[in-house]
Amino acid sequence: MLVVMRAHATEEQVRAVCQKIESLGYRAHPMPGAERTAIGVTGNRDEVEPAVFEEMPGVQELIRVTKPYKLVSRDIKEENTVISFPGSDATIGGKALAVMAGPCAIESREQAFAIAERVQRAGAQFFRGGAYKPRTSPYSFQGLEEEGLRIMAEVRDKFGLKIVTEAIDHESLELVEQYADIVQIGARNMQNFSLLKRAGRGKKPVLLKRGMSATLDEFLMAAEYVMSEGNYKVILCERGVRTFADHTRNTLDLSIVPAVQRLSHLPIVVDPSHGTGKRNKVTPLSRAAVAVGADGLIIEVHNEPDKALSDGMQSLYPDQFDELMSQVRQIAPVVGRTVVGVAAPMPTL
Amino acid sequence: MLVVMRAHATEEQVRAVCQKIESLGYRAHPMPGAERTAIGVTGNRDEVEPAVFEEMPGVQELIRVTKPYKLVSRDIKEENTVISFPGSDATIGGKALAVMAGPCAIESREQAFAIAERVQRAGAQFFRGGAYKPRTSPYSFQGLEEEGLRIMAEVRDKFGLKIVTEAIDHESLELVEQYADIVQIGARNMQNFSLLKRAGRGKKPVLLKRGMSATLDEFLMAAEYVMSEGNYKVILCERGVRTFADHTRNTLDLSIVPAVQRLSHLPIVVDPSHGTGKRNKVTPLSRAAVAVGADGLIIEVHNEPDKALSDGMQSLYPDQFDELMSQVRQIAPVVGRTVVGVAAPMPTL
Amino acid sequence: MLVVMRAHATEEQVRAVCQKIESLGYRAHPMPGAERTAIGVTGNRDEVEPAVFEEMPGVQELIRVTKPYKLVSRDIKEENTVISFPGSDATIGGKALAVMAGPCAIESREQAFAIAERVQRAGAQFFRGGAYKPRTSPYSFQGLEEEGLRIMAEVRDKFGLKIVTEAIDHESLELVEQYADIVQIGARNMQNFSLLKRAGRGKKPVLLKRGMSATLDEFLMAAEYVMSEGNYKVILCERGVRTFADHTRNTLDLSIVPAVQRLSHLPIVVDPSHGTGKRNKVTPLSRAAVAVGADGLIIEVHNEPDKALSDGMQSLYPDQFDELMSQVRQIAPVVGRTVVGVAAPMPTL
Amino acid sequence: MLVVMRAHATEEQVRAVCQKIESLGYRAHPMPGAERTAIGVTGNRDEVEPAVFEEMPGVQELIRVTKPYKLVSRDIKEENTVISFPGSDATIGGKALAVMAGPCAIESREQAFAIAERVQRAGAQFFRGGAYKPRTSPYSFQGLEEEGLRIMAEVRDKFGLKIVTEAIDHESLELVEQYADIVQIGARNMQNFSLLKRAGRGKKPVLLKRGMSATLDEFLMAAEYVMSEGNYKVILCERGVRTFADHTRNTLDLSIVPAVQRLSHLPIVVDPSHGTGKRNKVTPLSRAAVAVGADGLIIEVHNEPDKALSDGMQSLYPDQFDELMSQVRQIAPVVGRTVVGVAAPMPTL
Repeated sequence: MLVVMRAHATEEQVRAVCQKIESLGYRAHPMPGAERTAIGVTGNRDEVEPAVFEEMPGVQELIRVTKPYKLVSRDIKEENTVISFPGSDATIGGKALAVMAGPCAIESREQAFAIAERVQRAGAQFFRGGAYKPRTSPYSFQGLEEEGLRIMAEVRDKFGLKIVTEAIDHESLELVEQYADIVQIGARNMQNFSLLKRAGRGKKPVLLKRGMSATLDEFLMAAEYVMSEGNYKVILCERGVRTFADHTRNTLDLSIVPAVQRLSHLPIVVDPSHGTGKRNKVTPLSRAAVAVGADGLIIEVHNEPDKALSDGMQSLYPDQFDELMSQVRQIAPVVGRTVVGVAAPMPTL
Repeated sequence: MLVVMRAHATEEQVRAVCQKIESLGYRAHPMPGAERTAIGVTGNRDEVEPAVFEEMPGVQELIRVTKPYKLVSRDIKEENTVISFPGSDATIGGKALAVMAGPCAIESREQAFAIAERVQRAGAQFFRGGAYKPRTSPYSFQGLEEEGLRIMAEVRDKFGLKIVTEAIDHESLELVEQYADIVQIGARNMQNFSLLKRAGRGKKPVLLKRGMSATLDEFLMAAEYVMSEGNYKVILCERGVRTFADHTRNTLDLSIVPAVQRLSHLPIVVDPSHGTGKRNKVTPLSRAAVAVGADGLIIEVHNEPDKALSDGMQSLYPDQFDELMSQVRQIAPVVGRTVVGVAAPMPTL
Repeated sequence: MLVVMRAHATEEQVRAVCQKIESLGYRAHPMPGAERTAIGVTGNRDEVEPAVFEEMPGVQELIRVTKPYKLVSRDIKEENTVISFPGSDATIGGKALAVMAGPCAIESREQAFAIAERVQRAGAQFFRGGAYKPRTSPYSFQGLEEEGLRIMAEVRDKFGLKIVTEAIDHESLELVEQYADIVQIGARNMQNFSLLKRAGRGKKPVLLKRGMSATLDEFLMAAEYVMSEGNYKVILCERGVRTFADHTRNTLDLSIVPAVQRLSHLPIVVDPSHGTGKRNKVTPLSRAAVAVGADGLIIEVHNEPDKALSDGMQSLYPDQFDELMSQVRQIAPVVGRTVVGVAAPMPTL
Repeated sequence: MLVVMRAHATEEQVRAVCQKIESLGYRAHPMPGAERTAIGVTGNRDEVEPAVFEEMPGVQELIRVTKPYKLVSRDIKEENTVISFPGSDATIGGKALAVMAGPCAIESREQAFAIAERVQRAGAQFFRGGAYKPRTSPYSFQGLEEEGLRIMAEVRDKFGLKIVTEAIDHESLELVEQYADIVQIGARNMQNFSLLKRAGRGKKPVLLKRGMSATLDEFLMAAEYVMSEGNYKVILCERGVRTFADHTRNTLDLSIVPAVQRLSHLPIVVDPSHGTGKRNKVTPLSRAAVAVGADGLIIEVHNEPDKALSDGMQSLYPDQFDELMSQVRQIAPVVGRTVVGVAAPMPTL
């Protein structure tokens, strides 16, 4: 922490702050500047509670310095975390771009199979689909629950796709862990610390979506919650943040990808479907996400978007997903990535 | 919903959209304007999924119209909801200003009693204190849990204060319901729909804090989740939202108070402690909250803020809380409110 | 500035950063902490350009410390700036609440006089009205220009009200200075530095509105631009900032009032008309603005809001303004302020 | 405009609103829905001022529908605007990616030439450099003014690069038009309507940067201001918006690129230097900007960033710019674009 003194703070005031710092068991480092003095505070195992300084005479401002994350940090682990899946070539965080695709919500076995068949053929290795849907309105469709999970387990068996699906509380997490390969924690639950800890006590990799107004620090600290319980397989996911901008449902913040990669060893994927909320923007932003260096994409695809029970407005038609894959396949090598599956013919934009 | 056509949309395109609307079982209301045609869509029990229209030729934009909340709305219930407590004069939503005060976290019996004694004397009817603390870092103090609840139950017995405390998951909610008078759902859990539904199946009033980036609609819909399960005793709480502004920890959005009161019959209180995050701004913003017409205040008070285990920076000293009460006592009558307790002498600002 | 090193930065890396700092003519203050070392940089007359450190091995982050404002700061001038007007009792920044009211745009002599008569009677000392209107669309009404200024000069002569009106460029500022008593710089021009400097070379007090996404620092630095040219009579104005919230046109950030008052000696007034954009929220937020401690209010009042050529939606009817004045008159004493004019009868809310 | 009635609005209330609409010379289109009635309003040449409806009994809400832009719209002009330059192959808005590069501020002839030589060699067709710098602090370096313009004119003569530079007021615009090929209007002046109109009366293409909190509509309306005065050569520029996110200086909103391209025929380029404010994020976001489909890039390059007089922290070294160009050269074909100049060897990321 740094205590910044006012320009006209007296030497006595500076001295008093230093004494207070030392009396609390920290070390004070006064730095007299051209205009004002700043005092560094070190030696703190826990966070310093700055309340004590704030109102002392001559104090202008307090600035926090230390970032409290540990396990998520590259300080702890230099090399990238690569998550792999038993009995599968699929990885997340390695050289191959991880592609997750599927409907917002599982609606029926037929729907799930029809979509899985198409996304698998296009090159996805992961099937996403909601069985427990956190909806803004209690009157909206809330998902097929365990029936949805069962359908996704069949999808895995039939198409060899790994399953990603959201858990919304301890109870659903229990079931999701049984059926799925990756447990998703949604944006609205990014700071549901009880759920994060529970996921941290499980063994399945966790896909953690960034909260709608989460800073980078909060996002990493949420991952730290999972890891602090012993589960180190965390995949971060940027899905757009809330801003004043109204031309998209959320504002996709692609700059967080290199920012995460600088500070953390964890993989980060991008969700342009929720990140834009508009079908016609999903493909351009998917290209951008791959170009910026993301470890993967998670994309909503629906065979009949206009009949979708949720989020149809942002779901791609299977043909559009084919084209998306064809485009990202061309961009991936520029950032040193590979894309599995057969290259489709050159698209016309 | 409203489908806005492009300026040069042809009559055929307008007709095609109308036919599509009717084919889905809705009614179409074309409105030719000076420059472009808009088409109203009515007859929808559920939300219309607009995906189908978005990509039709000639369509420019889709605008949602209907607000989906029901039970929270003044459309359903004209008169204000007033929440009362058995064996107590305290109310929330009535003529009396509801004042809730206490430490961020319960740290010990001594601390809780020392603070309770002071806030009760100053005029608070409710004691707030955290037993389960949702902290950004897993390494920060997380609360005394059931021990904290027990201490608060003693506070109620000794000082006659009603207890407000946060539940963070189903398990803690179970306990909070046993010990407390009001169950708080924190900002980070405002869209933890599983927890909202669980609180809705309980009988204790729920204090629902606005999420950090929740719109008015989302805030009301979260209350709707609680009410849709049968618990109609919901108290809304504005506690600041996240913006670019960095002179306060959050930006306290007082305009939501009249906005809520226009649309909903539910009471709304204001939390200037979290809303500003800075002790020296709590009293000015408390005055403003009462002046804007809030139904109550929730204030952090600590006997030794600089030793507080959490949020000391924003906690008032008991003397400062006395002064705050003295000031709001003078403002309350201007908005037709009363404040219980003895009037303190005129403060010097 | 503070250079924060990574947790595992070597001693050589720390030493290299210190040497670089010294080689640039600054002083380095290394502070070894429990987990990582931070290095303070002092001695800088200008801002340090941190680019040089950012990419050095072992460096995690750079944190700016110094606030660059001088003339606006209480460091320079402890006591509040009070702006007075020759041949008038009106002041801004003193004990009396400054009340500015009038139409968004001057539309005609009749309209201006009708409104001026009412707001003067209700207790306003300042008449606001736009002659040059910065409108989002080039096709909207842009103001009567010099004709509008002439009408306002007549309003001053007849009603004794001081005139506040906006200048949008050098040319209009030249004219505004001749006719008006206070030159308004609008939110959209808060960082039009050329215009700020020009206003700083004038002699008329400047009402500087906060930009839609201006931080406190940027707001104060914009005032510094005016003052750095020699004009010390600057009145700050909070008028709402842009956030995700959609229940008001802007989010009125009342916490900036005590924040400004802590750092600066300049007066600050609040504009709840633009700050909310909705007529039914102007009076509640005006009460709140006075309660939080603002030095004044600036309110849009129109005799026929539904025929207003701009911003009618947020303009009060004269009767509503009477009631507003009656309410703030009761709140002002609580914050040690007086309101001029005769007290109206107690309102019923 | 759409007037949404409350759920329990009576037929009389609906009728009264319709009559009011007709009495103002508009047409009313009542649409009775399952729960509530909405009333469309058409026939308006100007904007309807909704104040009149807002307070009528039974009215819940007013929703604006019409977008007021005309000349910027694809409704007026289907095909993309391509801006070309006499005596040059360079274009903006066509098949070739427009690449603009250079220092934040022109500091000397030597500096400008050294940088120009490198960026030209790497494939830039445009040289950017500031002669008039809008700085947050009045005490920061404000640019070489006309001397800077003269140096850039020499750069054009020697290296064949077209010159882009910012004008900050009428006076500087006069000079910029004489020396430069493109007149830049900065983000802080995006709603300096007086300056926009002046640029609209000129003949040089205008590079219009998005304001820090400008919506898509406001951004397009600012371009409309320029075009409404007769200058149709407008290039839009996304440069990041202000949000709560603090890991970058601004949040680069790449989704606005397809959003603009859907509504408008004007070209849009991206500025990842200001959009991130951090050198190590410029190249990843440049790749993303090309991948999303931007018409060009504007990049800060400095030969000695750590000695730069402004914005050194976000300026690339010339070698980094070479690598950037090499990477975007590989991505451009995927979105159907060409990049001029010789392809550099495959980079290693």
